[in-house]
Amino acid sequence: MSSSYGKNLRISIFGQSHGQMIGAVIDGLPVGEEIDLSALQKFVDRRSPGRDEYSTARQERDRVEIVSGLYQGKTCGAPLCLLIANSDTRSHDYEQLRDIPRPGHADYSAKVRYHEYNDPRGGGHFSGRLTAPLTAAGGICLQILARRGITVGAHLWSIGGEKDAPIADNCLNPQLLMDFSVKDFPVFDNAAGERMQQEIRSAKEAGDSVGGVIEVFAIGVPAGLGSPMFDGVENRISAAMFAIPAVKGIEFGSGFAAASMHGSEHNDAFYFVDGRITTMSNHHGGILGGITSGMPLIFRAAIKPTPSISQPQATLNTKTMAQTQLAIKGRHDPCIVQRALPCLEAVTGFVLLDLLLDSEYQSIN
Amino acid sequence: MSSSYGKNLRISIFGQSHGQMIGAVIDGLPVGEEIDLSALQKFVDRRSPGRDEYSTARQERDRVEIVSGLYQGKTCGAPLCLLIANSDTRSHDYEQLRDIPRPGHADYSAKVRYHEYNDPRGGGHFSGRLTAPLTAAGGICLQILARRGITVGAHLWSIGGEKDAPIADNCLNPQLLMDFSVKDFPVFDNAAGERMQQEIRSAKEAGDSVGGVIEVFAIGVPAGLGSPMFDGVENRISAAMFAIPAVKGIEFGSGFAAASMHGSEHNDAFYFVDGRITTMSNHHGGILGGITSGMPLIFRAAIKPTPSISQPQATLNTKTMAQTQLAIKGRHDPCIVQRALPCLEAVTGFVLLDLLLDSEYQSIN
Amino acid sequence: MSSSYGKNLRISIFGQSHGQMIGAVIDGLPVGEEIDLSALQKFVDRRSPGRDEYSTARQERDRVEIVSGLYQGKTCGAPLCLLIANSDTRSHDYEQLRDIPRPGHADYSAKVRYHEYNDPRGGGHFSGRLTAPLTAAGGICLQILARRGITVGAHLWSIGGEKDAPIADNCLNPQLLMDFSVKDFPVFDNAAGERMQQEIRSAKEAGDSVGGVIEVFAIGVPAGLGSPMFDGVENRISAAMFAIPAVKGIEFGSGFAAASMHGSEHNDAFYFVDGRITTMSNHHGGILGGITSGMPLIFRAAIKPTPSISQPQATLNTKTMAQTQLAIKGRHDPCIVQRALPCLEAVTGFVLLDLLLDSEYQSIN
Amino acid sequence: MSSSYGKNLRISIFGQSHGQMIGAVIDGLPVGEEIDLSALQKFVDRRSPGRDEYSTARQERDRVEIVSGLYQGKTCGAPLCLLIANSDTRSHDYEQLRDIPRPGHADYSAKVRYHEYNDPRGGGHFSGRLTAPLTAAGGICLQILARRGITVGAHLWSIGGEKDAPIADNCLNPQLLMDFSVKDFPVFDNAAGERMQQEIRSAKEAGDSVGGVIEVFAIGVPAGLGSPMFDGVENRISAAMFAIPAVKGIEFGSGFAAASMHGSEHNDAFYFVDGRITTMSNHHGGILGGITSGMPLIFRAAIKPTPSISQPQATLNTKTMAQTQLAIKGRHDPCIVQRALPCLEAVTGFVLLDLLLDSEYQSIN
Repeated sequence: MSSSYGKNLRISIFGQSHGQMIGAVIDGLPVGEEIDLSALQKFVDRRSPGRDEYSTARQERDRVEIVSGLYQGKTCGAPLCLLIANSDTRSHDYEQLRDIPRPGHADYSAKVRYHEYNDPRGGGHFSGRLTAPLTAAGGICLQILARRGITVGAHLWSIGGEKDAPIADNCLNPQLLMDFSVKDFPVFDNAAGERMQQEIRSAKEAGDSVGGVIEVFAIGVPAGLGSPMFDGVENRISAAMFAIPAVKGIEFGSGFAAASMHGSEHNDAFYFVDGRITTMSNHHGGILGGITSGMPLIFRAAIKPTPSISQPQATLNTKTMAQTQLAIKGRHDPCIVQRALPCLEAVTGFVLLDLLLDSEYQSIN
Repeated sequence: MSSSYGKNLRISIFGQSHGQMIGAVIDGLPVGEEIDLSALQKFVDRRSPGRDEYSTARQERDRVEIVSGLYQGKTCGAPLCLLIANSDTRSHDYEQLRDIPRPGHADYSAKVRYHEYNDPRGGGHFSGRLTAPLTAAGGICLQILARRGITVGAHLWSIGGEKDAPIADNCLNPQLLMDFSVKDFPVFDNAAGERMQQEIRSAKEAGDSVGGVIEVFAIGVPAGLGSPMFDGVENRISAAMFAIPAVKGIEFGSGFAAASMHGSEHNDAFYFVDGRITTMSNHHGGILGGITSGMPLIFRAAIKPTPSISQPQATLNTKTMAQTQLAIKGRHDPCIVQRALPCLEAVTGFVLLDLLLDSEYQSIN
Repeated sequence: MSSSYGKNLRISIFGQSHGQMIGAVIDGLPVGEEIDLSALQKFVDRRSPGRDEYSTARQERDRVEIVSGLYQGKTCGAPLCLLIANSDTRSHDYEQLRDIPRPGHADYSAKVRYHEYNDPRGGGHFSGRLTAPLTAAGGICLQILARRGITVGAHLWSIGGEKDAPIADNCLNPQLLMDFSVKDFPVFDNAAGERMQQEIRSAKEAGDSVGGVIEVFAIGVPAGLGSPMFDGVENRISAAMFAIPAVKGIEFGSGFAAASMHGSEHNDAFYFVDGRITTMSNHHGGILGGITSGMPLIFRAAIKPTPSISQPQATLNTKTMAQTQLAIKGRHDPCIVQRALPCLEAVTGFVLLDLLLDSEYQSIN
Repeated sequence: MSSSYGKNLRISIFGQSHGQMIGAVIDGLPVGEEIDLSALQKFVDRRSPGRDEYSTARQERDRVEIVSGLYQGKTCGAPLCLLIANSDTRSHDYEQLRDIPRPGHADYSAKVRYHEYNDPRGGGHFSGRLTAPLTAAGGICLQILARRGITVGAHLWSIGGEKDAPIADNCLNPQLLMDFSVKDFPVFDNAAGERMQQEIRSAKEAGDSVGGVIEVFAIGVPAGLGSPMFDGVENRISAAMFAIPAVKGIEFGSGFAAASMHGSEHNDAFYFVDGRITTMSNHHGGILGGITSGMPLIFRAAIKPTPSISQPQATLNTKTMAQTQLAIKGRHDPCIVQRALPCLEAVTGFVLLDLLLDSEYQSIN
């Protein structure tokens, strides 16, 4: 039951990196929603490989095809199934890895879990390729949210040691979110972006890789979404976000920085401004007691450096138990943070729509 | 559906801070497990108020009573219900807060969510008191895990700006975990612990509060637990951990630090040592591809500073929309990090037992 | 995970027949709902033992106590926990049964499932006593449904071979439902009721027991509840109804009789009467394609004869594998059908409220 | 969330009758299981239209294609997706029905539920065509169960008023089950089968349709599957079985007949025969207290007569609210009972495999 998620909206992801097809089924979408397929394709293309000089040279384009759930272009209540065909797969690159687990990859743990039956080709179901249908599914949700006044965006908070400029508290607007999200390198500060790209170039030249942090914003989120304890917005978002391979941490609002703050500094005072209750600062990241406050939802996710590097690494032959050296051949991204960014937006969209459809929330409105 | 969680093991938490009783129902516990009630009470007492000079003076003792699910002292397959009676509640302290939301608390978002029907007394269902049954439920799981060779422990990674000494990679053992977990101030470095306590004292004197970070370890966890995508160990732990009020971030292994590392540095090489496959470093925190690797499970959670402080704060009367000043009276913890620690251990225990009971995992063993 | 159920509304039942307490937690109730405790107690008393000459002489009264989830008498959003204390239990009656499974009871299958750890006292968690908290939980739902114009009632369709008069199609009204449901012997035709009671008396005199069929109606149910395939109203009701021990069959509308009918006879024609779309006949039982049609919801459940009888029965000593004779002593109902009736109403209420809270349903209204 | 189901094994069905594709995703299958695609296709063909003179003339063959979840022909742990392309659809047959709901169909309730967005072509997601992927998914489970010694079969208990011969208690064996299940007309008594076929012919000639009852057996099911209350085998099977359109009732063991029996007659005595505990009679249908007893699992489902008939029927134009006559054109089955039979076997297989994978069950073995 690894690959399905959601309460009111239910997603089921399927496929392996080098199998015939990957895809997703989404059950529970509101009806009568028009899906802009061309905009959806553009959104999914933002995570596609081969878009820039830093990404893997694999030329595959993830063409999304919707085979059910629509009638006359609109959601009709039946589950929506989207398919993406695999192509341009070079399985022989991976054959050597059956008994030689790549450090930092799921090869070893997957083999313990699924024995010799695990599909080793390109990471199988563990591959980052599975984020393509996830991104497509979430992209559909983002289109539906936009009609309800909710906009999700993200920027590269940091790559390696290089940090983007912070956004000023409380000055987010939908157009701004859109603008920086769609950049090839979604940063506020282009000079910082240039330094980040230099980090990636250096890693690539060294046959190495580098990680980063993505910051996600959602604005227009109404107050009152989510529930206390296990069904809070933080629980739901984090439960979904770790589905993206390479995510190793998540923090909401001030997050880990809050641990060094005093209450007098961290507490966000309430004000009545322009006819609505708000806070000036947003240390709480738009969530109090698991429930949205109406302030922008803000969180950051840590992305570890891509484990596939061409530098030789020490590892083990798990058949002979002899130590060995592994130099991973083939095409690999020195950094996947910029490609992961639309996927984080997508997953956020999925979770927010699921929360919006929540019966308890609906019954209060 | 806010307050139930789990797949094979299902927990349901109930109660309000100043209601008659709080408690939990746990469904799906393995049968034939003896519960040591005295050890369980001691474990729950570790989170109780009034244990040290820093904690709230509320003298209540959380006496755990198990009213179902046992037969002749052992789990019998029927759901286990545990009850904790509330007493020593001073509801009048909170009456003024109905229309004056405390900054950093759930008062405002809860009122949007549940209107005037929300129980405002002591935070109602949002209160940290609800972690008492959660701790008790998880404590039962920890007893069961111990029989399977799994030990969970935690230390105070930091309070305010003061940090504990790190643990050397790969040198954890069950006795060590137990030893530091049960300390009043669970740190490796007592001098650092003294500095942390000074942080708390200073905050208290200033009518303020301070946050911190807790690091949790689980050793003896077998490789192969968890599933890819939405059912990974990170998804499950984070989904549960944000049930603890004040948790605002979580990171596994190197976590956010991984974002600044190179792949060559972050990847943990595999070795064959003492008859088993292992890694020397543990940047992956014991989880690869959502599945345990057999290495110690390591994660950290950020705890925000207690929002209840006695310093006057700006807030709003949500009835009149007039700005006002609020000085929270009553007894409040200047720091809840040390009290939250056993609760994090407990929730970890609950999630690990749920994962251990997973059918897919069981069918491979 | 045996004893929890529901999607938007989640119920968790706990307790054993001779344990300290039995009870239920309900999570997800709409807020602001006043619970009439006295009416609830009266409702639960309808299933209590010792109410008439045919029921077991065990004098216990199931006093329902609500210990959480209410604030100022109204649901507040926190999970509601209700407790019923056990008393007047004579455990020694059951000790002999540990190795001698009673025919028709769960003794044998429970022992395979939970080994020697299963609580054998009075049937443990398998006991009909567990329908007391189920009835109380559903009774709360029925109060909430009544405010939304939905009324649930039931009559004894048959006891042994004796059948009640049928209700005329389309002539149900709330007052009628109430009237016959609250009778000690809820039948339309009192003469038939007298014959049923004679069946029970005869069974009792013979040291035997007798089964029956209960017919449940729900009126005022809006059209559009439920979903196709696995989430239909029939799926949901049947999934819940088999939680009541002794239920062995369920049929909706014409049910099994439909299997002998022609389409031209079974299809219910649509008409526009009194400003609303309706059907004259109701062979579909108010459900088409899993979704309510707005017509009265009608179903019947078959209740097997109580397995506990005082006549000697052949069985096995599962320790020695020797055949033996068993004469069950103690107090036993010759017929539990009339006591099960309010429980069926209650479970219907629970499922209907869960469906009413369904997000997809809500979003269409 | 209408179209997904299961606990350990999770199925998600998608598609509309006249859409591009229908299919299913199954998550949680045990790994290393070889799928015999040719046998699977043969199994699915048993429900295909156009197989005999009584079924609709629509010539479509449901060719099952598996696009994920296999590696080298065996299940690999990744979710399995199967697709069936739609073809030979004549949508214009159905256009007239948009505002004229067919009696006995979901047209009206679906329109209330999903408004004008519901796909009306051929019944959309409500169509019996959706049982094709359901049958395929369950067929995979049946292959896996067969390796574990569990065989599922079914016969036509009745069509219209004509009944098949009963099977003698306790004399089922796997070969017998296979033999009668694969017949075009799966009956024990061929003379009774001939009478049933005459019923269908008569209905067809009259432009009418006829219903029936299917009896399903599962043998080799180990004792100890299932849980008390909401997670019993009866709850699970019935919750899944009503996903098949036209099922209006279900009964286990003696079912509704039990309601007229005495306990002394209905209770199945335990015996020790051939080294195992068993019962001679099987009124309990292999389930006691929600848990399997090791005896054959037996249940019957009532199938209503196909609502599509060519006789003119009274109905309503829901736009104008004028009464009208409707004569449904196109190709329709006068009886779908024989086509539904493999689907009932398939769903039984799915539920049994899900139960077999249950952690609590596994932990006892």
